[in-house]
Amino acid sequence: MTTVGRTRRPGISGPAETLPILIAMESMQVGAGTSTRRAARADNARVVADVIRQSIVDGAYPTGLPLEDELAREFRVSRNTVRVALSSLRAEGWIDRTPRLGTTVAQRPVDHRLDCLRGLKETLVGYGEVRNAVRIATVLVPPPVVARKLELAVDEQVVYLERIRQLDGETISLDLTYLVSDIGIPLLDADLETNDVFPLIEQVAGCALGDADLSLSAAAADAHSAVDLDVAAGSPVLLLERLTRLADGRPVDLEYIRMRADRITMRGNVSRIHESENR
Amino acid sequence: MTTVGRTRRPGISGPAETLPILIAMESMQVGAGTSTRRAARADNARVVADVIRQSIVDGAYPTGLPLEDELAREFRVSRNTVRVALSSLRAEGWIDRTPRLGTTVAQRPVDHRLDCLRGLKETLVGYGEVRNAVRIATVLVPPPVVARKLELAVDEQVVYLERIRQLDGETISLDLTYLVSDIGIPLLDADLETNDVFPLIEQVAGCALGDADLSLSAAAADAHSAVDLDVAAGSPVLLLERLTRLADGRPVDLEYIRMRADRITMRGNVSRIHESENR
Repeated sequence: MTTVGRTRRPGISGPAETLPILIAMESMQVGAGTSTRRAARADNARVVADVIRQSIVDGAYPTGLPLEDELAREFRVSRNTVRVALSSLRAEGWIDRTPRLGTTVAQRPVDHRLDCLRGLKETLVGYGEVRNAVRIATVLVPPPVVARKLELAVDEQVVYLERIRQLDGETISLDLTYLVSDIGIPLLDADLETNDVFPLIEQVAGCALGDADLSLSAAAADAHSAVDLDVAAGSPVLLLERLTRLADGRPVDLEYIRMRADRITMRGNVSRIHESENR
Repeated sequence: MTTVGRTRRPGISGPAETLPILIAMESMQVGAGTSTRRAARADNARVVADVIRQSIVDGAYPTGLPLEDELAREFRVSRNTVRVALSSLRAEGWIDRTPRLGTTVAQRPVDHRLDCLRGLKETLVGYGEVRNAVRIATVLVPPPVVARKLELAVDEQVVYLERIRQLDGETISLDLTYLVSDIGIPLLDADLETNDVFPLIEQVAGCALGDADLSLSAAAADAHSAVDLDVAAGSPVLLLERLTRLADGRPVDLEYIRMRADRITMRGNVSRIHESENR
């Protein structure tokens, strides 16, 4: 069996023993040196950081994180391991640590749905006020790939929008949008500052949207986009390409969206589909 | 209307004019100085880079990218703007540029589905051979949050796995997995190196998986995880928490997965659900 760095414990198939994380991990490194112990601590700290990070996303800790001692007990690791985990989370911008106030959540990201097609304002009902700073709203001939995805002739024009989207005054995403012209041109007269594009498209088209293809990736913000998103260059962003169709299947809206990773989490629920059903 | 950096063109509702991207954008900056022109070029370069990046993900350019001149014509921008776009894409690791060979795709990421529940090996059928380097496979008492999500008593034990997952020998993700013990313990004797956990769970449980809750974010790889993922520290990763249930609704598998952003793109299709239907 291929192993990386450490040896897998031989098959444990008998009754389970009580093995707190740190002991379980250290038991694999009998006689190991300092660098191995450091690696084990980094492994444990990652386990701790992953669970705490997700708890922040889930909305735990509204009044701040427990003390280091308490976290050490909860996670069954040393206080040093907790410190390593918390300093990672601070470096990632999830928590603030101050002598008097202890450890508090810097900012909880908002949930965007992966399993239904909604605009940002529709999604963030109850979270706060969504406003869009419209940087560009114009008519242009798009690149051939964009024309192809929108099923347009090569020289057909589209409406191009560039919007910085804010929740309660804080930037959360930068959206580059290509709209087919029969729908996009009327939208240039609409209030793009307070509306999502989706309901505006439905108004203009006189019918509901159907579905969208999503392609989601992670990226480090380039220097230019970082300024627009009000983050440090290199900060993590979610990169979403979304091709949206009307109910009749016609593609009308192609977007390239950069979402601040500290402000938006994508949530979804998926069902098991067996290979046999899928073919 | 709030604008950021530049002024929105007043409503264009008449017949569309032919406005190539660069001209359209530059027309908004009449009389602007060098720094504004630089910002316009950066905007244009981002438009170009976003479309090319997605084309790479979509599998365009199997034999390499077109020449700079050709891209400049396609995107209706200057060659300088194309150069800025290509140097961003090179910095992000998407393309290689060599004097003789021109511009080639460094590596095309594989597609992982967002709209059905599949293991990595099930997903990557046809892409190559998936193997898992099992770093840790043990029994432990999980943190209380993990116990709660798996609907276990606070001191109940779970099986904990740490696996580095590789496609044709290249690392693509690092998976930290908590399994309820009645399912996890038999798995410790299974071949975890060549199998996904999902079909193994179904074998042991004697029934199919049902669904999973996903929470997806972007992150910069911490130094320790970067080594495990074989990337530079700070490289973008997709961070996925996935809680998987059996068909009867019992949660059995909680995972924290780091996927290399240059190796995996998440794809899905979503349908419009109207607020009224959803309440």
